[in-house]
Amino acid sequence: MFIVPEKEIAALVTRKDNFDAVEQVFASMAGGSAYNFPVIREAIGHADALYGFKSGFDRAALNLGLKSGGYWPGNAEKGLTNHQSTVFLFDADTGKCRAVVGGNLLTALRTAAAAAVSVAHLARKDSKVLGMIGAGHQATFQLQAVAEQRNFEKVVAWNRTSEKLASLQNVADDLGLPFESVSLDELGAQADVIVTIVSSQAAILNDAQVKPGTHIACMGTDTKGKQEVDANLVARATVFTDEIAQSISIGEAQHAIADGSLKQADISEIGAVINGDHPGRTSDDEVTLFDGTGVGLQDLAVASKVVDLAIEKGIAIEVDF
Amino acid sequence: MFIVPEKEIAALVTRKDNFDAVEQVFASMAGGSAYNFPVIREAIGHADALYGFKSGFDRAALNLGLKSGGYWPGNAEKGLTNHQSTVFLFDADTGKCRAVVGGNLLTALRTAAAAAVSVAHLARKDSKVLGMIGAGHQATFQLQAVAEQRNFEKVVAWNRTSEKLASLQNVADDLGLPFESVSLDELGAQADVIVTIVSSQAAILNDAQVKPGTHIACMGTDTKGKQEVDANLVARATVFTDEIAQSISIGEAQHAIADGSLKQADISEIGAVINGDHPGRTSDDEVTLFDGTGVGLQDLAVASKVVDLAIEKGIAIEVDF
Repeated sequence: MFIVPEKEIAALVTRKDNFDAVEQVFASMAGGSAYNFPVIREAIGHADALYGFKSGFDRAALNLGLKSGGYWPGNAEKGLTNHQSTVFLFDADTGKCRAVVGGNLLTALRTAAAAAVSVAHLARKDSKVLGMIGAGHQATFQLQAVAEQRNFEKVVAWNRTSEKLASLQNVADDLGLPFESVSLDELGAQADVIVTIVSSQAAILNDAQVKPGTHIACMGTDTKGKQEVDANLVARATVFTDEIAQSISIGEAQHAIADGSLKQADISEIGAVINGDHPGRTSDDEVTLFDGTGVGLQDLAVASKVVDLAIEKGIAIEVDF
Repeated sequence: MFIVPEKEIAALVTRKDNFDAVEQVFASMAGGSAYNFPVIREAIGHADALYGFKSGFDRAALNLGLKSGGYWPGNAEKGLTNHQSTVFLFDADTGKCRAVVGGNLLTALRTAAAAAVSVAHLARKDSKVLGMIGAGHQATFQLQAVAEQRNFEKVVAWNRTSEKLASLQNVADDLGLPFESVSLDELGAQADVIVTIVSSQAAILNDAQVKPGTHIACMGTDTKGKQEVDANLVARATVFTDEIAQSISIGEAQHAIADGSLKQADISEIGAVINGDHPGRTSDDEVTLFDGTGVGLQDLAVASKVVDLAIEKGIAIEVDF
């Protein structure tokens, strides 16, 4: 059994590794050779924690396992990350535990990779302005991963507390991209690609604020009741997702589905676009929207790449188990 | 993070450790301070494998985690156990992965401990003859654990292929107990305690074969369609179980529930007896039946004990994770 500690992850995988792994597994899901098992999510009644598992099997890549962990709101006081995740990989041929991999950074990286995959396949080729909504922990990873998918010339950003945008400004500086803190109206008017990565109980971005031709990656909604954008915007857009079952129930599409303005049949898997079974964007005026709900198979895909690299570089800790 | 490899387990825990751990968690379940999360079980469409998780949280013992693994029918040819399990424990205060423990032997030990707990709390004190039905891998562990709960004077045993009873005979010899291979009629007529530990799709033991006052531990039924004993026998008995939801759906009680001869309200948690909230056996003529379906919390309970002992004895492998 191989162990790859959390602290080793950052130096092991590149954004391209994560992009390729997530793109491959989305394609496998749409092609029917990979599926996610039911999600377990429990409020355990201790430390206000939410705990659970996301799991699945990719028959193409032979990735089998789960990400386990959850949200411990008291961790920050103890100097720990509130979100704690560990990925466990199993040998699909024998059922033996193959690897244990720190999952905290990987969660941010695989989520950012999903947004980047959606931009690569759905955004207009001539996209110039990238709009970021949200400035939490995951936002910087999103900006890094998405920025390299098009020849962006500027980043515009909005956050409820605009002081927090400094971390995004730093990333934009590193990328050599001009950065502007803007209103939501300005953001929608300028941006060709918008990433929303907030934890919100009500729509932040309205339909009228978004211009034709925009691609929006909604990456923050993974729970019943959460919402980042107007349901009318979802209904107007051509909607893609990682997993349709999650999109309609816990994803950004849940609200447009609930009010009847969007039907399940209107939502396509991003993997179908990757596989060439769906044309994706068909006009420059079309609004495309990726509902990134986050699936266990993404975690397995990036963790498996990490293990391969850690073994190759002699960093994986091998335990006779 | 601590690792306790499979090969270390046998020398670490005693049967008393396992008995105490399982008895405690059954009591916690009945007392409402421990619960199992939904079980995930998937035919993954590769290597004919069944894979999944049993998980839960015991707020009293602060045991949080899962047993993951499954059944790989081709393993035996590779020199591996077909059933492969690994237990993962998490720190309930922070969500960090605390330990990874080999779960193969533990599965047999915790199942045997459950039967032993049922015998300790439900069998007549004057039980003299122990009847064993089944002679597979888990049967020897059952015999060892149950034999020490009463002053048994003899073991009678039945298996579809009687040659396989040699392994049970060896255990009985070690225990200094006379051993007899018998028919099912003889077994029922003699035994005061019966353990059934077979994987069967139809009843093996009939109602008429069982004499008044017997305690039966049905340990082999954990799937829809499996059955070890006549539904009439279940209906006649006072029925106890580890978890009622599993008992009625995938446990031995499923058939008596389905034919209407037993109601869910007729089934009691063994933990209620342990806690003193249920009188358990109330007469020497009563047939008591324990429907041992196997819950994730049992795995966590014994694995947690293993980790404590492995740390204490310097055997646990510590990894800076």
